[in-house]
Amino acid sequence: MRRAKRDFPLAEIRRHLETGPIVLVTSQQDGRSNVMTMGWHCMMQFTPALVGCYIWEGNRSHTMIRATRECVINVPTIELADQVVQIGNSHDDGGDKFAATGLTAKPARSVRAPLIAECYASFECRLFDDRLVDDYSFFIWEVVHAHVAKVAAPRTLHYRGQGQFMVAGEVLDYRARFRSENL
Amino acid sequence: MRRAKRDFPLAEIRRHLETGPIVLVTSQQDGRSNVMTMGWHCMMQFTPALVGCYIWEGNRSHTMIRATRECVINVPTIELADQVVQIGNSHDDGGDKFAATGLTAKPARSVRAPLIAECYASFECRLFDDRLVDDYSFFIWEVVHAHVAKVAAPRTLHYRGQGQFMVAGEVLDYRARFRSENL
Repeated sequence: MRRAKRDFPLAEIRRHLETGPIVLVTSQQDGRSNVMTMGWHCMMQFTPALVGCYIWEGNRSHTMIRATRECVINVPTIELADQVVQIGNSHDDGGDKFAATGLTAKPARSVRAPLIAECYASFECRLFDDRLVDDYSFFIWEVVHAHVAKVAAPRTLHYRGQGQFMVAGEVLDYRARFRSENL
Repeated sequence: MRRAKRDFPLAEIRRHLETGPIVLVTSQQDGRSNVMTMGWHCMMQFTPALVGCYIWEGNRSHTMIRATRECVINVPTIELADQVVQIGNSHDDGGDKFAATGLTAKPARSVRAPLIAECYASFECRLFDDRLVDDYSFFIWEVVHAHVAKVAAPRTLHYRGQGQFMVAGEVLDYRARFRSENL
């Protein structure tokens, strides 16, 4: 199912990334797009909105992302579990993973890498700091545009290793016990 | 409830951190311990086991952790939700958060910062790389000792912002569809 996503405030993207979901990272170079799965990411700053992530240098996406200094971080939910596993276990042979999985590439606003229409959230990223790329394959991204579909409690996938995913469960609301400046 | 934790292989700690749980970070300096909540962390390497995390410089823990170059990352489950919210919203006034919350500090093996007995997993950390501390308050840790209690599917807490936590839900097992080198 393609998701009707809307512009989302950059200062609030933690709502969709801090829980630690598996994400699909897209890249594009010389007119060819690629997708990879990624679970090693974290929020680093609210404004500008910074996200750090590890992208293994053995992955073809690493080369494309490093050259173009752009990517899109897309957040899938349980409906896309088969595609996530397929992408994470596909041979990195340059084949078209959009065609292979049936996922739909949509143009982004500010970067060449595509959004994935079936993901409920997509974050367009530009490389903000590359100083850890050589030593750790760790990229620090500025999210320059955020697109999020209205989903009350997205059933995101969280990788536990050994082929297992934890699916996002119930939501506890402790809002009344938070100090306002901590919300 | 205090958890009987055992030594756990360092190369497999991603099983407990990659899903993105809220963690309790302990520190100790001059005989005084502190605890903070933290949700901005990510795996960075399997061996040595590296974990990156953001610790806001306005937090008293930041000063202690920066001075001692050590901490322990403890993973709570839903039974500790009240304590997590209490710690995250306490005044940073130097009071004893172990006494205030009823959590139990236990000696670690390789660092001075304490383990939290009630958390099902605790990872002793030494600062591995400080080059992003000044600019981003981002610490790169080597996990030097891991303690994990046997829990089939830990009901970890995942912060969604706005006072809401997602609780770890069902587990999907896709092991049979993974390439062996990807497990």
